[in-house]
Amino acid sequence: MSHPVDDAVSAVRTYIEQHRAAFLDDLVDWLRIPSVSAQPDHATDVRRSADWLAARLQETGFPTAEVWPTPGAPAVFAEWPSGDPQAPTVLVYGHHDVQPAAREDGWSSEPFEPVVRENRLYARGAADDKGQVFFHTLGVRAHLAATGRTAPAVNLKLLIEGEEESGSPHFRALVEEHAARLTADAVIVSDTGMWSEDTPTVCTGMRGLAECEIRLHGPGQDIHSGSFGGAVPNPATAVARLVAALHDEHARVAIPGFYDGVIELTDRERELFAELPFDEGQWLRTAKSRATHGEAGHTTLERIWARPTAEVNGIGGGYQGPGSKTIIPASAMVKLSFRLVAGQDPDHVEKAVRAWAAEQVPEGIRCEIAFGPATRPCLTPLDHPALRSVVRAMGRAFDAPVRFTREGGSGPAADLQEVLDAPVLFLGISVPSDGWHAPDEKVELDLLLKGVETTAHLWGDLAEYWRHAP
Amino acid sequence: MSHPVDDAVSAVRTYIEQHRAAFLDDLVDWLRIPSVSAQPDHATDVRRSADWLAARLQETGFPTAEVWPTPGAPAVFAEWPSGDPQAPTVLVYGHHDVQPAAREDGWSSEPFEPVVRENRLYARGAADDKGQVFFHTLGVRAHLAATGRTAPAVNLKLLIEGEEESGSPHFRALVEEHAARLTADAVIVSDTGMWSEDTPTVCTGMRGLAECEIRLHGPGQDIHSGSFGGAVPNPATAVARLVAALHDEHARVAIPGFYDGVIELTDRERELFAELPFDEGQWLRTAKSRATHGEAGHTTLERIWARPTAEVNGIGGGYQGPGSKTIIPASAMVKLSFRLVAGQDPDHVEKAVRAWAAEQVPEGIRCEIAFGPATRPCLTPLDHPALRSVVRAMGRAFDAPVRFTREGGSGPAADLQEVLDAPVLFLGISVPSDGWHAPDEKVELDLLLKGVETTAHLWGDLAEYWRHAP
Repeated sequence: MSHPVDDAVSAVRTYIEQHRAAFLDDLVDWLRIPSVSAQPDHATDVRRSADWLAARLQETGFPTAEVWPTPGAPAVFAEWPSGDPQAPTVLVYGHHDVQPAAREDGWSSEPFEPVVRENRLYARGAADDKGQVFFHTLGVRAHLAATGRTAPAVNLKLLIEGEEESGSPHFRALVEEHAARLTADAVIVSDTGMWSEDTPTVCTGMRGLAECEIRLHGPGQDIHSGSFGGAVPNPATAVARLVAALHDEHARVAIPGFYDGVIELTDRERELFAELPFDEGQWLRTAKSRATHGEAGHTTLERIWARPTAEVNGIGGGYQGPGSKTIIPASAMVKLSFRLVAGQDPDHVEKAVRAWAAEQVPEGIRCEIAFGPATRPCLTPLDHPALRSVVRAMGRAFDAPVRFTREGGSGPAADLQEVLDAPVLFLGISVPSDGWHAPDEKVELDLLLKGVETTAHLWGDLAEYWRHAP
Repeated sequence: MSHPVDDAVSAVRTYIEQHRAAFLDDLVDWLRIPSVSAQPDHATDVRRSADWLAARLQETGFPTAEVWPTPGAPAVFAEWPSGDPQAPTVLVYGHHDVQPAAREDGWSSEPFEPVVRENRLYARGAADDKGQVFFHTLGVRAHLAATGRTAPAVNLKLLIEGEEESGSPHFRALVEEHAARLTADAVIVSDTGMWSEDTPTVCTGMRGLAECEIRLHGPGQDIHSGSFGGAVPNPATAVARLVAALHDEHARVAIPGFYDGVIELTDRERELFAELPFDEGQWLRTAKSRATHGEAGHTTLERIWARPTAEVNGIGGGYQGPGSKTIIPASAMVKLSFRLVAGQDPDHVEKAVRAWAAEQVPEGIRCEIAFGPATRPCLTPLDHPALRSVVRAMGRAFDAPVRFTREGGSGPAADLQEVLDAPVLFLGISVPSDGWHAPDEKVELDLLLKGVETTAHLWGDLAEYWRHAP
């Protein structure tokens, strides 16, 4: 008598093996559409990509598959109810737009003419994010085939936006507008990656982001540094002193109140980070940097994944051309971004920054601060039942222990978490070598099919364990 | 029996009154030539201006008047030997090129069509510097007329450059090339101003200038502040910390060795500064600034005239456009200028800055420093015999006590001081309202003639007292 889990694994694999060729043909079709949201002359292509996906999701079996317009590029929404009134509802997030790409940027082949070389599919969007959206189509079919169901074990919803590569300018409004149809018990984001091919991982959180520009005004116009130098406040000096006051001698952010609410890493989480096969030399090469530097008492992984930061993204004032110009500039500015971690409130951070800056600015300098829209941090507790389901499903697909990572960046997932009041989980199969936003973007075909396999196991597992959630 | 000084004063005044109309007509002719050295399409005009001046100096009586070519715009050299083997030699410095000007910049009349309104002559160059060069022509004639001499009491040399408004790029080389013909016991610079119409003053020094650009290199290219933020050194933060370390809490320059050699103000000099009718509110309006700020323990005049400074002229790095870009920039730079006072050595300052910067820069950041050519400070001791002559000559012309100022800016005078190893004195009659480099530049005709009168007295006085110099 065979073990039921083994049975399920092999049924899923058989189904995938049978449908793999058609699945890849379809994906290649989609990748041919240059859905570059940042380039206005590709607006038609982005719409074509949305139409193509909606049609494909209907063919997959989704009773509902709609193109949702926005003031920019359209999103695709699809829904496949479980039929079981007890079933949890899961919303999958991804995006169908892609980064710009041109052969002359250094591609080995045309970016919108997909080719397979050495079991890798090369095309713009192969990993970011069409490949990772698309594995859900074969995944849900494999789930049905292996379980004999006619509808998924969860109420399955997909929201695939069309402007992620352009900063998701209309995403939050779209989610708010359709909040009633998007309600979910959990959100699964398929737009991230794993540690490496050999180390399957689940991301458990993303940092949030608050951004501001601080402009300091000195003289009413640039004035002569010979006539006035040494006797009036210089806004460029003031902006530098402000930035220098951002961090203390332990490289901690020195803004009073900045760390309020920060959820500190548990010892267990720090251990889990430390268990990852992290090669700092290799990481430094990726960062194109000569040395690590950051908050005392934390490792590099802790610093980029689990600690809030203050970084200067840009600074400017006065004369920056060739040669010299002996002026005291009229103004100077700095663009700061603050990465936030779970427990931090962007509004509170904004207030803290404003109060701190007002305190720092010397007499005779006027300070102007503008904050952009903030992104909240998100974090899935390690013991969350949905996270346990993702880990189990991935473990079955990869036949390997699944470890945990986090993501240092920030994304629209936080809007879903906030508007829908649902936990966000990450299911991505991309690896660092996939070349997101770079020439020769590719997806590893074996990993792509592991993604299919993971989702094929996930919906049943989620349905079964979710109802036992505390 | 009349007093000989009163006789001389009235003889000079009579001569000037008789020749005033022709003098002004000639100056107007010269001001019609738009000798804008910064604009290549005026190159012919700058040459025409040099030719015009050389011809006019010959008519004045200078046995030698030559146009000296440079790789840029030409200078004019003229020489009128005294004939007395004991006579000191004086070199007058000025410039015949002017700042750009166009009616649409806000001029009330055409900048190169001189007009007199309310006893003021309006034209580009009226004060800076054609008017102040030109008063020497009538001045030497009045000197001869009043003394009955056929040659000046001093060996009189003029060097009138053509690129001052373009930063004098070839001036030092010109002076070095012709050093043998330019030798002088004193240099008189007529390219500065007085405190005000009511307060005749002599400038006794200019600050020097050392300039550098410091570029700090971080990552090999801009990197993502989400992926790497908080874990590698940010060159924009580093440049800000460097700038913040420039000054201590007393606004003194904190670079070790920076103040080495500085000649401190004497109590007498501080008293003389304090006696000037300085209105800080008015000065702040001129500086278009809201507050004064500078080295503790010094007044504003001391700060701008007699204290060395470190100012940021420009700072830049990373993204400075609209909106935001979440990067850690690859590099950031700052342009610094250091005003130097007598006793400071630019080479020593450069070494001090380099050592200090190397010390400040954090691990993982590469520092690149480029210094431009420096200008030395110059200072005339208050008891210098040539200075006493200038003060006496001015006192006679103005019938008022002459006070002392300094100049916060830096100029090519320092090259003359250094190459010719001669003290530099300043004789300027311009006032702050004359609008140098601004629309409606003008010269007060009464002051212009006081300039004539001053030089008419100066050469005799210098010849008489110089030989008694210690």
